[in-house]
Amino acid sequence: MDLGGTKVACAIASDAGELLAKESIPTRSSEGPAAVLESIANLVKELSEGRNPAALGMGVPGLVDLERGLTRFLPNFPGHWRDVPVAETLSTELRCPVFLLNDARLATLGELHFGHGRGAGTMVLLTLGTGIGGGVVVDGVLRLGPLGAAGELGHQTVLPDGPRCGCGSRGCLETLASGPAIAGEGVRLLLSGLAPKLHELTDGDAGKVNPKLMAQAALAGDEMVRQAILRAAGYLGIGVSNLITALHPELVVLTGGVAAMGDLLIEAVRAEVRERVRMFPPDTVRIERSVLADKAGLWGGIALARQGGIKGQRNSWTTTTSISQR
Amino acid sequence: MDLGGTKVACAIASDAGELLAKESIPTRSSEGPAAVLESIANLVKELSEGRNPAALGMGVPGLVDLERGLTRFLPNFPGHWRDVPVAETLSTELRCPVFLLNDARLATLGELHFGHGRGAGTMVLLTLGTGIGGGVVVDGVLRLGPLGAAGELGHQTVLPDGPRCGCGSRGCLETLASGPAIAGEGVRLLLSGLAPKLHELTDGDAGKVNPKLMAQAALAGDEMVRQAILRAAGYLGIGVSNLITALHPELVVLTGGVAAMGDLLIEAVRAEVRERVRMFPPDTVRIERSVLADKAGLWGGIALARQGGIKGQRNSWTTTTSISQR
Repeated sequence: MDLGGTKVACAIASDAGELLAKESIPTRSSEGPAAVLESIANLVKELSEGRNPAALGMGVPGLVDLERGLTRFLPNFPGHWRDVPVAETLSTELRCPVFLLNDARLATLGELHFGHGRGAGTMVLLTLGTGIGGGVVVDGVLRLGPLGAAGELGHQTVLPDGPRCGCGSRGCLETLASGPAIAGEGVRLLLSGLAPKLHELTDGDAGKVNPKLMAQAALAGDEMVRQAILRAAGYLGIGVSNLITALHPELVVLTGGVAAMGDLLIEAVRAEVRERVRMFPPDTVRIERSVLADKAGLWGGIALARQGGIKGQRNSWTTTTSISQR
Repeated sequence: MDLGGTKVACAIASDAGELLAKESIPTRSSEGPAAVLESIANLVKELSEGRNPAALGMGVPGLVDLERGLTRFLPNFPGHWRDVPVAETLSTELRCPVFLLNDARLATLGELHFGHGRGAGTMVLLTLGTGIGGGVVVDGVLRLGPLGAAGELGHQTVLPDGPRCGCGSRGCLETLASGPAIAGEGVRLLLSGLAPKLHELTDGDAGKVNPKLMAQAALAGDEMVRQAILRAAGYLGIGVSNLITALHPELVVLTGGVAAMGDLLIEAVRAEVRERVRMFPPDTVRIERSVLADKAGLWGGIALARQGGIKGQRNSWTTTTSISQR
């Protein structure tokens, strides 16, 4: 299960990891946690055709208390989700164990078990969507840190005095290379009359601008749009370089809507890494688009359910650990 | 043994890890590798009073081939050190196994076994000196990556269009917060007549400016010098924040000459981390000055010798792995 801001995706797999069924429904986030959890339970029941699933692995867009199965901090998700007992509620309803994990870490687990990461020792994954999330794998183990918050790779600073971020800091990678950051620059160019091809593709409607259409416009000849994409890719390349310098992973995987923009983006990321990583040969690190695309989270949920949650890493949320909602 | 650009430090310890003798000599780097290695061997023989040491752990200011005991890439060290068989040469001379390691990773090992890091699971260390080096410990294990190059924390980009770095990139943390970076700004202020207290402390001699005197001048009332220190500390705080965001270590240790500047620096680093780390409570990470100060590398050498080198991490330098000296 992958809980997103606009849709909930669910997949059922066999013990052997074969996909048996898959479906998405709109997230009823405006109706609050109880309604969302009820619709999730109904979706699982429907897809599993009345049989109890053996376990459920579920991605959540924020930080969770892994041990107690509570949602803790869902920054871009409507409604009051602080300390909602998601695992217990669904577990009672579905009569199976339920394991929560941050959605980007779940996608990392998916890529590790079913994608480019099979057999990888040290790997970094970035999910490039409405926000930028991530996951870090060291020696084949997804690293979570004491609060499941290690891997918040979108919130590294890549421009010290850059734009304000929803997290409260500024110049985070997310402010410069997320889907909204790229689309926002596309809108500027559209409204300034600097993107004729993008104007054609969107009928001049700023509400239709998105990274995918921008990539098309750039290929069709919109030079300013191409420069905007390269600028965002440059910041992504800096973020990736910083992770490579710290960890020297064998593999970096990019996933999410922005990664789907195509070769223009990933080639520019690779070029920036060659410029920035100079202390050792950058060609010792592969930088790839996810083979699982937007299904990485679902595959991660299957992996999480099969392995019975995350073991061996203590989770130390306490009732006094506080994050102020900003 | 800790091989530095200006001095070589050596310590002898008992099997139990008690310090028996310690001495430093000037590095005869201008005379080339053979002379340097000869002086090292003589120093060890002298300190060990004719008895053969059981093992030697040695820090080298650059990248080494761990398995073959070769120096590979010593960026700030005079002479031709590419592929010098340091371990074999010293091993023959001293009749004991010799294990090489990058000096900052060695300091990390020292801090892990004998300093703040005792009992730590995940820890990051930065050595703030002529350059900025580092080490990353995950689950109590020093992470080296396939070339021993993981942990090059001074070469993360913290200012995309910042100053050129010796590594070939630009805006590396090292260009903004190393000893020379801070001293250079001190010299600017001195020569511009903006640092009266620093002028007193150095008799107006730019060659005498160093971070320690700058910290004194700031305390004595040089406001511009204080601002220069805070600016460097801000960049350090950004670098530290990025590592915290990726790994959520329980401990960050700062060591080297710049860390010895005192509370002004480390308090400013902590303040910047509170500004930048917003996705989880930054007070879950301790940020400390090394208790071993400039002896962290020596203690790391003792740890490395006692544990018989770095085990269980493959080192994949090949004859075709090339780094162009820039």
